[in-house]
Amino acid sequence: MTIKAVVFDAYGTLYDIQSVAAITEQAFPGYGEVVTQIWRIKQLEYTWLRSLMRRYEDFSVVTRQSLVYTLRILGLKHEADVLDRIMAKYLELDLYPDAGAALASMRGYKLAILSNGSTEMLNTLVPNSGLDRVLNATISIDSQKIFKPAPDAYALIEATLGVRPAEVLFVSSNPWDACGAKAFGLNVAWIERVTPEAMALAFVKNDVIAPLTMFKAIRTQMDELGFEPDYRIKALADLPQLLESLA
Amino acid sequence: MTIKAVVFDAYGTLYDIQSVAAITEQAFPGYGEVVTQIWRIKQLEYTWLRSLMRRYEDFSVVTRQSLVYTLRILGLKHEADVLDRIMAKYLELDLYPDAGAALASMRGYKLAILSNGSTEMLNTLVPNSGLDRVLNATISIDSQKIFKPAPDAYALIEATLGVRPAEVLFVSSNPWDACGAKAFGLNVAWIERVTPEAMALAFVKNDVIAPLTMFKAIRTQMDELGFEPDYRIKALADLPQLLESLA
Repeated sequence: MTIKAVVFDAYGTLYDIQSVAAITEQAFPGYGEVVTQIWRIKQLEYTWLRSLMRRYEDFSVVTRQSLVYTLRILGLKHEADVLDRIMAKYLELDLYPDAGAALASMRGYKLAILSNGSTEMLNTLVPNSGLDRVLNATISIDSQKIFKPAPDAYALIEATLGVRPAEVLFVSSNPWDACGAKAFGLNVAWIERVTPEAMALAFVKNDVIAPLTMFKAIRTQMDELGFEPDYRIKALADLPQLLESLA
Repeated sequence: MTIKAVVFDAYGTLYDIQSVAAITEQAFPGYGEVVTQIWRIKQLEYTWLRSLMRRYEDFSVVTRQSLVYTLRILGLKHEADVLDRIMAKYLELDLYPDAGAALASMRGYKLAILSNGSTEMLNTLVPNSGLDRVLNATISIDSQKIFKPAPDAYALIEATLGVRPAEVLFVSSNPWDACGAKAFGLNVAWIERVTPEAMALAFVKNDVIAPLTMFKAIRTQMDELGFEPDYRIKALADLPQLLESLA
């Protein structure tokens, strides 16, 4: 197999979406974690629901509406500028610590992002993090007006980079994204950031569970959608070695 | 406005999906509630993801796969026949207590179910509950090979009953379903089974929350998708009065 391009999901894969927790905690003391977790769950739901309803709005709209939902169900009153401040954090999310070095070591490949993020969001986020210096392209699904895991979204990779699906390694920590990419025909490396052992241990029968545990239970383990990623890695730092083994 | 047909969502609207909790608790003591809640969250996710991926499998497959996921992430080992026994309960779910009387009082209208359930599941569930005696049609989205809230799913109402969207009252307790039906052009009554006040009170800052609370937070409150139901009712029992006010 010849891999010519490595394409990354952005949110949750290169960029740590949990890095909004500090600002939500500051805005709503005691509620930072629960806001962050429910927000992310609803944000993804809304991308899928709007895609299915054929009522596309870009990721900044979906992200804001899912935050509005989250604050409403928690009964958290707020001024409009609080929303703006939290949303602004989405434009300067932290990179995972191993992201920069991993990408810098892959200079032999075309490197790109394929993200649900809007063109405008990505055009701010990516330069803010310095990744624009190593990436050949930052691809938003915006132009297709449908979110991942729709095939039309993944088709943008070949359309933009001119590399066939069989020559692409797609990297995501989002299980549903890994399944969607695999169903489309890409080679897929899934970053398994939470082990099954850690997951099962976090549960204590019925009673009560931490919001982060519930989030992990719903969103971090490989899904049962009839597709399996080709490779499972633990972190972005494992990628150079994986690519070497495939060369 | 002339309403000629009243069409119901099945799971969570006429049929109480929480009625699987007893059998999951029996199979996995101490885990009944958490299994039930995560299962339902993932079941819906899988309908949306498979629809978007264009990898339709019917609702019995999705329901089983989401249960397999749930047991796996909780580290719950089990024999295959345990799955079969829990799945069998999905064919004899309890009706909400006010469902029978409400439907019996609406004899002047065409009455139908439009459900994500497979034809085979509904053909067992509906007669088991006796609703076949009052319904003019039980419509599965099976024939379209795409789940709600895709427009093609709601289009089956007119195709089956011969009643135009503007003459249909669609009834669902699922917020995403109410939004999808509204986006399609149906008149929509949303059953609000959990009040915002009850919802906000259930949260105690970060710490820990009950699985049922997390489920309710994610799935029971009206979504921010740019659509609002025409009517909000508290229970199926409120329907006859609503219809009278519209006649």
